[in-house]
Amino acid sequence: MLDQIHLLAAVTVLGVLEQAYFFLQVIYARRAFGISPPKSSGPPEFERIFRAQVNSSEYFPIFLALLWQAGLFFHQGVAAGLGLLYLCARYCYFIGYRTSSSKRLPAIYFGTGILWILIAASALGIIHFFLSHYMGLNVLQLLTV
Amino acid sequence: MLDQIHLLAAVTVLGVLEQAYFFLQVIYARRAFGISPPKSSGPPEFERIFRAQVNSSEYFPIFLALLWQAGLFFHQGVAAGLGLLYLCARYCYFIGYRTSSSKRLPAIYFGTGILWILIAASALGIIHFFLSHYMGLNVLQLLTV
Amino acid sequence: MLDQIHLLAAVTVLGVLEQAYFFLQVIYARRAFGISPPKSSGPPEFERIFRAQVNSSEYFPIFLALLWQAGLFFHQGVAAGLGLLYLCARYCYFIGYRTSSSKRLPAIYFGTGILWILIAASALGIIHFFLSHYMGLNVLQLLTV
Repeated sequence: MLDQIHLLAAVTVLGVLEQAYFFLQVIYARRAFGISPPKSSGPPEFERIFRAQVNSSEYFPIFLALLWQAGLFFHQGVAAGLGLLYLCARYCYFIGYRTSSSKRLPAIYFGTGILWILIAASALGIIHFFLSHYMGLNVLQLLTV
Repeated sequence: MLDQIHLLAAVTVLGVLEQAYFFLQVIYARRAFGISPPKSSGPPEFERIFRAQVNSSEYFPIFLALLWQAGLFFHQGVAAGLGLLYLCARYCYFIGYRTSSSKRLPAIYFGTGILWILIAASALGIIHFFLSHYMGLNVLQLLTV
Repeated sequence: MLDQIHLLAAVTVLGVLEQAYFFLQVIYARRAFGISPPKSSGPPEFERIFRAQVNSSEYFPIFLALLWQAGLFFHQGVAAGLGLLYLCARYCYFIGYRTSSSKRLPAIYFGTGILWILIAASALGIIHFFLSHYMGLNVLQLLTV
């Protein structure tokens, strides 16, 4: 079973490490700007870093859910490759957002595009499974005939 | 293996699409009320939509965790059906909250009720597995005798 | 398959119950301090409870991701044990934070330490799988020779 998920697991752990990096940046920013918890508002420079982390945290379960469905039902290698691209896009988003609000945009468009590809891959894989499981239709076989 | 999780995977992807819809509503509201990131406060109309999305994001990993445990240890079809009901409740919650704070309440009570049923189903399924795995007790068999 | 994940599933459901407890504390605090949604700011006593719940929610998907990778690729029992310790640390964090911001610190250091151990266990387990799957190297066997 593990050989069907080891690439997904590796990307998952890399994603956790990236989240840890984002959390650390917020801790450093709290110290630099003197903003102690539970406060979460402050100068725009701090709020941009804070919001970048919050946004990345909100997307993390969505990313994992899609990574694993696409990896299990479409193709593990493709899903893991897209997952790595997404983690890169998230990193660029964070670095860009820290500089200015507008600099987060290219990376967020790219990252969101990857998530939509993962949604499409998951949906195709699951629909393909439903067709073959419930109706005995093998679409890939039909297309090649 | 995939035939034991395909319904859970389908509900998971539907849940992601719903989260995407909520994120889009916040983006539209940001434009309509002229509130650019990293700001997240504004008129109550905006804050209700914003909080509805934040709350849905916070519950999403909890929902997925229960959906999958209930589906794996209790019954896949029952868990997926409850999952679909939960996604409906979340949609009604979001639409209601957008109108007024009090209109989110019926849907949140219904949605929380479904989560508690999923918790009960997961717990029953896992306890049943523990009893048969470690003590050789098959409770279902004992009940029918 | 279920005997490889039943301990992870049990800890996952316990984690969900803990999250439910945190959500309830915020609801009680909202009533006690008269802060109705969508508002999320108020006196420090309320904001500490609110931030404790938000922080726990942000870490929950990270915790689950690590629990399951460590459990699948390293050792299920060890991962589940560490998971229980983490849930205790989270509880102490919440109770401490409610009293004062500084009282959350010991528990958060302990909890973060457990997450790093889970990261290390996951990484070791996955690297071990990669070495044996792609290069035919069994590191454990080599070490004992």
